[in-house]
Amino acid sequence: MTFVSREVRLKSRPSGTPTAANFEIASVELPDPAPGQVQVRNLWMTVDPYMRGRMNDVKSYSPPFQLGEAMQGGAVGEVVVSNDPSLKAGDLVNSFLGWREGFNAPANTVQKLDTHGLPPQAFLGAAGMPGLTAYVGLLRIASLKPGDVVFVSGAAGAVGQMVCQIAKLRGHTVIGSAGGPEKIAYLKEIGVDHAIDYKAVPNLTEALMAAAPGGIDVYFENVGGEHLEAALIAAKPFARFALCGMISQYNATDMGAGIHGLITAVGKSLRLEGFIVSNHADMQPDFVRDLAGWVAAGKITWRETVEEGIENAPTAFLKLFKGENMGKMLVKLG
Amino acid sequence: MTFVSREVRLKSRPSGTPTAANFEIASVELPDPAPGQVQVRNLWMTVDPYMRGRMNDVKSYSPPFQLGEAMQGGAVGEVVVSNDPSLKAGDLVNSFLGWREGFNAPANTVQKLDTHGLPPQAFLGAAGMPGLTAYVGLLRIASLKPGDVVFVSGAAGAVGQMVCQIAKLRGHTVIGSAGGPEKIAYLKEIGVDHAIDYKAVPNLTEALMAAAPGGIDVYFENVGGEHLEAALIAAKPFARFALCGMISQYNATDMGAGIHGLITAVGKSLRLEGFIVSNHADMQPDFVRDLAGWVAAGKITWRETVEEGIENAPTAFLKLFKGENMGKMLVKLG
Repeated sequence: MTFVSREVRLKSRPSGTPTAANFEIASVELPDPAPGQVQVRNLWMTVDPYMRGRMNDVKSYSPPFQLGEAMQGGAVGEVVVSNDPSLKAGDLVNSFLGWREGFNAPANTVQKLDTHGLPPQAFLGAAGMPGLTAYVGLLRIASLKPGDVVFVSGAAGAVGQMVCQIAKLRGHTVIGSAGGPEKIAYLKEIGVDHAIDYKAVPNLTEALMAAAPGGIDVYFENVGGEHLEAALIAAKPFARFALCGMISQYNATDMGAGIHGLITAVGKSLRLEGFIVSNHADMQPDFVRDLAGWVAAGKITWRETVEEGIENAPTAFLKLFKGENMGKMLVKLG
Repeated sequence: MTFVSREVRLKSRPSGTPTAANFEIASVELPDPAPGQVQVRNLWMTVDPYMRGRMNDVKSYSPPFQLGEAMQGGAVGEVVVSNDPSLKAGDLVNSFLGWREGFNAPANTVQKLDTHGLPPQAFLGAAGMPGLTAYVGLLRIASLKPGDVVFVSGAAGAVGQMVCQIAKLRGHTVIGSAGGPEKIAYLKEIGVDHAIDYKAVPNLTEALMAAAPGGIDVYFENVGGEHLEAALIAAKPFARFALCGMISQYNATDMGAGIHGLITAVGKSLRLEGFIVSNHADMQPDFVRDLAGWVAAGKITWRETVEEGIENAPTAFLKLFKGENMGKMLVKLG
């Protein structure tokens, strides 16, 4: 049985906002898997904003994608053939070999997935890296403590929707910002106390100050730019900023406008801390335990935006930067 | 015996860089001190960059100075008359009633000073608030740990000179930036490994990267602006920034250029934390113990820049913003 896997390769490095022309679809015929290997058919793959950084040829926390090669990223697939006793055909597995329809790989480079009754693609979103990112950012980086008023940007995104709900479950006042009435309606649905449509308000800082007249204690940063400046102004003394991402900046081709008002971090004793979720894998067991409880109790939900087919994976990725995803952006392959 | 005390009052709130016209000298005849009070003749007073913030009519961590009233700040004086058993004439005391030649105050609002053989004005500098600021910023805020490469801006200032030496005493590689050859010579004298004259180098970031090719672990921020941007670029993963002050920004009348490159805080997991030394008074005993040891061993030194006479206190203050002080700027009154 031959398996012809289509894959998305980086054709050229984007300058500024990526376009479809930066990607190409190619086909690879997978040989029979070698001893110790499995052959996996991907069912779902993720596109994430951080992948934009890997498209640049610069040293960062994950190495750059190579031109002419398939990109990488999270994926959930099904074992088709196993030449290793640890896995059998039909097993679901999590891997970092997304951006392709299938692959052969050593069995120990994929993780067998027990879905605990959740849909498998949840492990690319709410129950996966974005969910853990929300958990780590709130609980460890922002040192969330009782009574904190929490502001989240990109609140209706993959990470943001989890930040909002985790903070609400712990009894916090939550202010979420997102763009457009559909996202605002979703934020209200999941219990966000003040949902700010940043595309509609005349002044984001004023909107934030109106939502939190006493100021904010925690800012969960997904956006950067104007959102960060508003948070600096609204911050109470000793506020903590968890810097998870700054999607407004990922496609910048110049130094941009810069962040104003950072001097307030001195007078207000603010702490701004960036983090990469992979450095906090030790929190995974606690996250899984808490999430299972919240899911079982029907206290947490999430949204997905799905594109179908590997050929639409670049489109799915590009939509992230236009804010065209509600919740987690996924590509369905299986 | 009458004591006519001259004092410096805030005549008008500065817009931008303060000028002599913002201040006025007035005379007050002190009555005999009441029961429980002491009368103090100030010997030394301090001028500090943070006082600029108190000249604005905005809420901050310390309240604004009042127009037409004497300003406040650290001072060391000698008790002239005591109407309280806790102090006697001739005692040296530390107070927050600087910007004046003398005052009457309840005895419990001043602190008796045991100089341990140091000159009394040291308690306004190396052995006082600036010294403790360096200690707190390095050890607590920046979580200094073995092997850290430390970058300090304003390195030849009151706080910076202590940061450099404390870090050197603990075995660190220290890069200090300051303006002008005299300061650079001083930094070399106190053992700074790489002294950068930011006024002379064509590109501060390149100079910093050349001094620390492997990057910096700690940045002690006294200056802001271009210095902060250079530190963000040179930061190693997990670097910690102690935000003590940003003197380049204190006289800004608009939002200025903003800080570029803050997005690197995400990818490099940087922590930027502002602090106010008064929130960390619990470290005072450790600081005093360590400093006493270093002084006794001849391992630490400091410089002072002295203006004489209360009438020159505004000049001393203004010189801070021109970088015309080497080490601690003081005004000798006694």
